[in-house]
Amino acid sequence: MVTINENYGKLRGNYLFSEIARRVAAYGQAHPEQRIIRLGIGDVTQPLAPAVIDALNRAVAEMGTAEGFRGYGPEQGYEFLREAIVKEDYGKRGCDVSADEIFISDGAKCDVGNIQEIFGQDNLVAVCDPVYPVYVDTSVMAGRTGDFNLRTGSYDKLVYMPCTEENGFVPALPDRTPDLIYLCFPNNPTGAAITKDALQEWVDYANRNGSVILYDAAYEAYIAREEIPHSIYECSGARTCAIEMRSFSKNAGFTGLRLGFTVVPKELVRGGVSLRDLWARRHGTKYNGAPYIVQRAGEAVYSKEGKAQLKEQISVYQENARVIREGLLDAGYTVYGGIDAPYIWLKTPAGTTSWQFFDQLLERVQVVGTPGEGFGAHGEGYFRLTAFGTPENTKEALERIRKL
Amino acid sequence: MVTINENYGKLRGNYLFSEIARRVAAYGQAHPEQRIIRLGIGDVTQPLAPAVIDALNRAVAEMGTAEGFRGYGPEQGYEFLREAIVKEDYGKRGCDVSADEIFISDGAKCDVGNIQEIFGQDNLVAVCDPVYPVYVDTSVMAGRTGDFNLRTGSYDKLVYMPCTEENGFVPALPDRTPDLIYLCFPNNPTGAAITKDALQEWVDYANRNGSVILYDAAYEAYIAREEIPHSIYECSGARTCAIEMRSFSKNAGFTGLRLGFTVVPKELVRGGVSLRDLWARRHGTKYNGAPYIVQRAGEAVYSKEGKAQLKEQISVYQENARVIREGLLDAGYTVYGGIDAPYIWLKTPAGTTSWQFFDQLLERVQVVGTPGEGFGAHGEGYFRLTAFGTPENTKEALERIRKL
Repeated sequence: MVTINENYGKLRGNYLFSEIARRVAAYGQAHPEQRIIRLGIGDVTQPLAPAVIDALNRAVAEMGTAEGFRGYGPEQGYEFLREAIVKEDYGKRGCDVSADEIFISDGAKCDVGNIQEIFGQDNLVAVCDPVYPVYVDTSVMAGRTGDFNLRTGSYDKLVYMPCTEENGFVPALPDRTPDLIYLCFPNNPTGAAITKDALQEWVDYANRNGSVILYDAAYEAYIAREEIPHSIYECSGARTCAIEMRSFSKNAGFTGLRLGFTVVPKELVRGGVSLRDLWARRHGTKYNGAPYIVQRAGEAVYSKEGKAQLKEQISVYQENARVIREGLLDAGYTVYGGIDAPYIWLKTPAGTTSWQFFDQLLERVQVVGTPGEGFGAHGEGYFRLTAFGTPENTKEALERIRKL
Repeated sequence: MVTINENYGKLRGNYLFSEIARRVAAYGQAHPEQRIIRLGIGDVTQPLAPAVIDALNRAVAEMGTAEGFRGYGPEQGYEFLREAIVKEDYGKRGCDVSADEIFISDGAKCDVGNIQEIFGQDNLVAVCDPVYPVYVDTSVMAGRTGDFNLRTGSYDKLVYMPCTEENGFVPALPDRTPDLIYLCFPNNPTGAAITKDALQEWVDYANRNGSVILYDAAYEAYIAREEIPHSIYECSGARTCAIEMRSFSKNAGFTGLRLGFTVVPKELVRGGVSLRDLWARRHGTKYNGAPYIVQRAGEAVYSKEGKAQLKEQISVYQENARVIREGLLDAGYTVYGGIDAPYIWLKTPAGTTSWQFFDQLLERVQVVGTPGEGFGAHGEGYFRLTAFGTPENTKEALERIRKL
């Protein structure tokens, strides 16, 4: 008799964004006359850039000819894309990363969960609190967290690293030493950035303890300040302790096109085994590559035209972030994030929980955000708005919120 | 200190096709003057059909406009595609499958491995021998097989179901009752098909024992005979014991475009838990959907033009299969498969192992096939050729082999 993976039973409620979608759909059905503005989920709104569209068109045309057709691609991804990444994302920032350390995938979300498979079952996992739920949920599903403790509101075996106003939403080194450390900077959901010095402390800590940092750099394109590192490999010693995940979703609007990558340096060895080789084996056995046409689209992101167009695209979202941030400040809210990140993290009014604030915004002014509690216990009392809406909707949402 | 997943150390050698690629590359470098014909890996050679290209072009154009742009898609896949699948793949064959039981993915290879995650660690896995290596390797990586036993040439805890000339390459019900049973028909690598009556026996067996059949139907488009079922859901009772995986790779040439799906019926419940709901949770948490443009391409596969064009495309590969099959028979080989499947399974000459035959074909006539031993112990003495080459290459390969 088949048994099921009992760890799924330890998951808390639905995946956050499914729950939000459910509440919004229910409200929309009850009030079809209301125009809802969505600043909740981190989905982009601007169309793909012309350079990306051109690359897709060329690649689609190739696929329709006997000479140009491409079937299964190279297991790690096409070299043209990996080489562009090495040069543009790493070489230009002085990071030592080579093409055979890059694994093209269909997105960072898949990679941040799947990467756990190459590690032993008993590794202790650390996450920020609040945190992108996927790190926690995939750890639960893999049986690495133990049970959810209703009294403490946390998983018994998970190390939570509080991100608070006091520490500027950059966690302190944890008391219990974790084996796997999820870090995401610029941060989702708080919008906080980490300085190079602070990140260097984490790298040194991981190297001292033999831990591995799983560094989610999906929002690096939004970094505005000079002193903020775009990659963990800007820190010295990161090649012996860090795996970095990147996405094309937020820098190039690929949320519906699906492309990302993971970097596993060759120096990353544990128990005498190369983690790069383990991931190569996992990637080659359980995955079959991103579509050729999408990899060509990814290549276009690094072209001269692509870079210029996407700079423009990101500046629209950065301006949204400014509008949200300053609008909220004007309206008397306490606000974080939104400078080096597309997320604004606001404090809910005193006495209002984050889900209450969610319902208020939805029901009174028809604006959808994300309740901080959905990101963890330390997210309670906060609320996330994203800068990925259209400029018109973003401005209108802020006007509505100011009337609240 | 991080520990690694020790199960990876139990994997045997490289993934089969990586090893083949290595040998072919080495030969090619040493003999650059030779033209190598590849009938090894199951990759298609015909370009995407015009209806598919049109759909891609339309979808790419949409993605370049503010109105047509699509970001994150629905978690299970777009309804337009799931509804087309329900109607064309299942409804027309009298199979009761609904759109909310279909999960669109980036290919069957990913799904056949990932599906294991929703099951308990201790489930006993059964595979055919010979077998598509991914079922075995993903079971090893998940720690479900125990160690590889050099004396027996098999994994201690894996149930092997021999597929031999004697049983027509359709396995007998196993002695030890497995929990998870991988079946693939039409079969890779043997090219064998299963009759509806024989498949019904498996369904009844699984229902009697509470086992779950993981049915890989990636090659159903090649079925030529009336009595061969295209889906396991043609058997009565399959909805309480079977998960079916399908691919667009072989019926529509999507090997480089990446699209597939998995069906998990709502009646599939174990330990009081719906497997459909578990898979929905896994899919929503660890995956972010196939690209919108690729899902539109998939929809076009079911259009009137698409169906006509793809019937033509498949008939080219079917004709290749006939050429290989009859050519080999003429040359005195014993040959199986190639009637309801794109794979031909030939017996290697007496006294020649399958890797020896691989090297002979490569070195003497520059034809690449796949050694049966790479698919399992019972694959020794056999060799797989695929019908996915171009007609010209296929004919020339057979002329060369006849001169061997």
